Amino acid sequence: MADPLILFMPSGKRGRFPEGTTVLEAARQLGVYVESVCGGRGICGRCQVEVQEGQFAKHGITSAQEHLSPFGAKEQRYAEKRELKPGRRLSCSATIQGDLVIDIPQDVQINAQIIRKAADTRVFERKPAVQLCYVEVDEPDMHKPLGDLDRLKEALERDWGFSNILVDQYLYPQVQAILRKGKWAVTAAIHKDEETAQASMIALWPGLHNEAWGIACDIGSTTIAMHLVSLLSGHVVASAGTSNPQIRFGEDLMSRVSYVMMNPDGREAMTRAVREAVDDLIGKVCEESGANRNDILDAVFVGNPIMHHLFLGIDPTELGGAPFALAVSGAVHTWADDLGLGANKGCRVYVIPCIAGHVGADAAAAALSEGPHRQDEMMLLVDVGTNAEIVLGNSERVVAASSPTGPAFEGAEISGGQRAAPGAIERVRIDPETLEPRFKVIGCDLWSNESGFAEAVSKTGVTGICGSGIIEIVAEMYLSGIISEDGVIDGALAAKSPRIVSSGRTFSYVLNDGDPRITVTQNDVRAIQLAKAALYAGIKLLMDKLGIDHVDAIRFAGAFGSFIDPKYAMVLGLIPDCDLSKVSAVGNAAGTGARMALVNRDYRREIENTVRRIEKIETALEPDFQSHFVAAMALPNKADPFPELAKAVRLPPRKVLTEGATGRRRREGGRRSRS
Amino acid sequence: MADPLILFMPSGKRGRFPEGTTVLEAARQLGVYVESVCGGRGICGRCQVEVQEGQFAKHGITSAQEHLSPFGAKEQRYAEKRELKPGRRLSCSATIQGDLVIDIPQDVQINAQIIRKAADTRVFERKPAVQLCYVEVDEPDMHKPLGDLDRLKEALERDWGFSNILVDQYLYPQVQAILRKGKWAVTAAIHKDEETAQASMIALWPGLHNEAWGIACDIGSTTIAMHLVSLLSGHVVASAGTSNPQIRFGEDLMSRVSYVMMNPDGREAMTRAVREAVDDLIGKVCEESGANRNDILDAVFVGNPIMHHLFLGIDPTELGGAPFALAVSGAVHTWADDLGLGANKGCRVYVIPCIAGHVGADAAAAALSEGPHRQDEMMLLVDVGTNAEIVLGNSERVVAASSPTGPAFEGAEISGGQRAAPGAIERVRIDPETLEPRFKVIGCDLWSNESGFAEAVSKTGVTGICGSGIIEIVAEMYLSGIISEDGVIDGALAAKSPRIVSSGRTFSYVLNDGDPRITVTQNDVRAIQLAKAALYAGIKLLMDKLGIDHVDAIRFAGAFGSFIDPKYAMVLGLIPDCDLSKVSAVGNAAGTGARMALVNRDYRREIENTVRRIEKIETALEPDFQSHFVAAMALPNKADPFPELAKAVRLPPRKVLTEGATGRRRREGGRRSRS
Repeated sequence: MADPLILFMPSGKRGRFPEGTTVLEAARQLGVYVESVCGGRGICGRCQVEVQEGQFAKHGITSAQEHLSPFGAKEQRYAEKRELKPGRRLSCSATIQGDLVIDIPQDVQINAQIIRKAADTRVFERKPAVQLCYVEVDEPDMHKPLGDLDRLKEALERDWGFSNILVDQYLYPQVQAILRKGKWAVTAAIHKDEETAQASMIALWPGLHNEAWGIACDIGSTTIAMHLVSLLSGHVVASAGTSNPQIRFGEDLMSRVSYVMMNPDGREAMTRAVREAVDDLIGKVCEESGANRNDILDAVFVGNPIMHHLFLGIDPTELGGAPFALAVSGAVHTWADDLGLGANKGCRVYVIPCIAGHVGADAAAAALSEGPHRQDEMMLLVDVGTNAEIVLGNSERVVAASSPTGPAFEGAEISGGQRAAPGAIERVRIDPETLEPRFKVIGCDLWSNESGFAEAVSKTGVTGICGSGIIEIVAEMYLSGIISEDGVIDGALAAKSPRIVSSGRTFSYVLNDGDPRITVTQNDVRAIQLAKAALYAGIKLLMDKLGIDHVDAIRFAGAFGSFIDPKYAMVLGLIPDCDLSKVSAVGNAAGTGARMALVNRDYRREIENTVRRIEKIETALEPDFQSHFVAAMALPNKADPFPELAKAVRLPPRKVLTEGATGRRRREGGRRSRS
Repeated sequence: MADPLILFMPSGKRGRFPEGTTVLEAARQLGVYVESVCGGRGICGRCQVEVQEGQFAKHGITSAQEHLSPFGAKEQRYAEKRELKPGRRLSCSATIQGDLVIDIPQDVQINAQIIRKAADTRVFERKPAVQLCYVEVDEPDMHKPLGDLDRLKEALERDWGFSNILVDQYLYPQVQAILRKGKWAVTAAIHKDEETAQASMIALWPGLHNEAWGIACDIGSTTIAMHLVSLLSGHVVASAGTSNPQIRFGEDLMSRVSYVMMNPDGREAMTRAVREAVDDLIGKVCEESGANRNDILDAVFVGNPIMHHLFLGIDPTELGGAPFALAVSGAVHTWADDLGLGANKGCRVYVIPCIAGHVGADAAAAALSEGPHRQDEMMLLVDVGTNAEIVLGNSERVVAASSPTGPAFEGAEISGGQRAAPGAIERVRIDPETLEPRFKVIGCDLWSNESGFAEAVSKTGVTGICGSGIIEIVAEMYLSGIISEDGVIDGALAAKSPRIVSSGRTFSYVLNDGDPRITVTQNDVRAIQLAKAALYAGIKLLMDKLGIDHVDAIRFAGAFGSFIDPKYAMVLGLIPDCDLSKVSAVGNAAGTGARMALVNRDYRREIENTVRRIEKIETALEPDFQSHFVAAMALPNKADPFPELAKAVRLPPRKVLTEGATGRRRREGGRRSRS
């Protein structure tokens, strides 16, 4: 008779094993990652599994609890000392007695005080670069005078297969005391990132040490965001964010580069500022979760190229001008201690590679998270900031570029613009008949024309328009015919609505007639057009490179993407035409990518290889940029059709106006044909 | 016709290569180490070779200058800019045109100010762990936005074959400026110790950097000795020594361990003291040679276990008592910067493994230098100190032990004893008829009975007896019949010579009747007997272990061995019988071993493997130690014959005396037979 068939979920990996094989051993042989700190001694409790009972016709398996050996002595002992949830088994102890479907639960928690964050929804297969290894070391023997550390290394090789281990210098003076304190039982943290690299012992504790943390951190120009993740369960246990204190040296990236160029100690001051902020965040996530800084053993950082350089202590001046040479584009391996971060003295740091001088490790991490390179659909991944980072591709080919969108989408350069904050207008609708607007502000669920709105916003007031509001107002102005496809505000409508007012040679639209009076000027519309045209032209260059005229899916990464309505983004022509159901916001994808690289070192290799094969387009050097840009100044676009968008939105009839040419207007009856 | 045959000297490696192959390429293919910093561009001048002209019948080679290509453009240019000695060729440029015997000269010096030390006689094949690699890096290209560091890595892989190089953190912020300063030509220092290890970039200079230094350092309890060695030529360019400043915490090892145990900051203070002394020595050797500290890229340290631990910052308390557990016995890899040593920020440190709790890295290094494991003769290697370290073996098997000889051999515990210094008696002869002595003191070439002696020593005086003097006086007292084979001073001789005087129940011998009066007391003889018996018993245990009753060769390592006369050491029975021509002093063999490990990383693997297979004997645990010790109290030995010694020295007839039993003596006519 054939050996029992074992299927592991969620990976789906399967194989046949002789009766009596432990579940842990079967998992190991199939390459299914099951944590174990104690190496099968039944004391760490990390290797818990669950049997999925029932008939799994698809797999030809009838799985039952009885197909595992009864509770053994190790499991009994563990269940008595610590909690073992009903149905849970220790895979190092339970042996295979028949066909099984085994689930690796994602909620194995040993330290009860640590609470799982609700936000932690995506679960990744784990294979961390740092592993805890409990070993029992031979006592010293005068007949075999191998050093204490050397016997520890022997035990690590015997029980865990790590040969020729390097040792962090700081541990040499500590080894003897730790071994004796643990009565010759210790837990070593072993770092091994690359398959072929020598393993390093980076930390050591007496006895069983049953927790190890890692941090995943996205250093943005404006915000620094951090997750604290258990390397043993893969869970995010705390997340925190803070403003990037470098803002005091310059609001945007280029002003920070200028600061470095103008001030002898500028680079150092900015490096110190960002490192201190990261260190404070470590304190925050530790406090939130009850974790100990000293148990943080690994860290992954991402950021745009300038943040990446400043964090690593590298002068970013070269990134301020052509040829935008990165000091280092590849992955960086270093030590938290060398970066002045308070964590375990041996804590390692891995920095995800940058794609190009304007397309950073954050974009690479977002690509890792969303995985255009992992699927056949043509995916467009956009992170909109003052510099938009664009990645486009599928499993065959991936291209990337950046576009200088400027700060308009963040509310800067817009007369009524402001950062997203309570009181900022974020949603706008314009009645195409009356041209009357209604809007929503951040912090209030009511539309401005609903009763109770005035009271509801009395605390914050209506203060300005944030990025997503700007997208909507301009799109709605276009849909309602207030602006032409070229973005000109139709002054003739001043006769029809008091909302259209003259401001010298051009016209404005009065969005809020109260205090403050908030208008959208012709210049505001122009600023949005310039920004969206830059982004679209960049996307178009990438599409040209791949020889495609449509994309299958669009993902918005970053905070901006989370708040805008994809439909309006498409009406504006910010992004190319696409099935609207395939356009989504993915939040801090860079942070998610960092988290993936933290819990599974195979993801590090994946993004390193992907970045190597990503084709980089320098938009400024492409001869077609200009024509794409000009076409993209129109709403949604002068050259490209938007058939998918047209299915969802009634686009206005074509209207051509010349700025300043009040009253002189031509109307054309239908949608233009494709040029 | 067959390809030309090339023979490289001194290695003797040979092979046939097509005409037109460069000599450098041929050497590389044969595994002959020829230095090259510039990678064959003809600018570093490190790859010089010489043709040995003539007929080499043994090899079937007729070698001639004309069998090399004529001076090419690269060589012309080099010879014009820098000096190229007559007969010298650049092996990267000269190509093979016929049979050749090629000599790799040992005196290639690029920086003329560096003077080769006369003491540097032994030459070792080189294969340093740190290599200088000159590369020309592609300039940044917006179409291929690889980082500056990444393009540098590409160049290092392309030109030097190092893939996947790690980079020292401190270099990240410097790479861009160095590349630009060097106009995209730089020299990188690459560290790669183990064959399978990832290479690391540890230093970087603009342009061609044509010197790299290493230090080899032996940290003794009393003295710290250092060599500064060119990693590019293998030459010692400076040597220096200094007292170990830890002496202020305790004269001998055990008193230093006590100091650590008694004082909370003792370990730290001693670590600081020894590291500062090492750092001062680095300053000294740099000053002597004109070398720049910043060009020191590698360092090898050896020392006895306690010095080893204190230098690495490890508490040596465990070494103070059974089971004498070393914190670490294996090789240690670390950074000079982490040890507080002033060298290049990326300078690596390699510490040779310790053999056992009492047999340190210094003994391992001495074994590496003398190589008992490399040859078929049975070699005994002894380093005499307060704790003698003994290694015995041949290519088949090596054993090691330590023996607690105490400080008698260093002049302590001896009434007239002193350290070796001007004025100390170092040579002694006693007339067997008159029992009158003559002696020599350090700092004077005359015997004490020669005319002019009194004036010659008037400055220093005759101050005491140093270690080698003690060996000789006791041996001479035995040879002249003043003491019996059991070491008893024959009081009956007081009647014959005024040199024999009573001191209570025992007698003394008056060596110097002047000021100060220097005598050898019965206790002095006993102290020497105890010391030599301990050493001999240790050696005997090792011989027992190997099942041998004689050794083929004896090497004395250390300062003590350099000054004693092997014949007298054998008369005393300090060492076993051996052909006297095969007994030699090898000076600071530990320092030589350190130097070997510095210039050739294969020697590191050799000593690591040797230490692993050395069998360690803990003398205190061996049941036979006591009986060996008792037999070895006699002169030369009660149990073992000394046939080789007997060929060189007329041993006195047997005389058995009982201490304190004045006048009662028995004489026996001949040499005792073997018991």
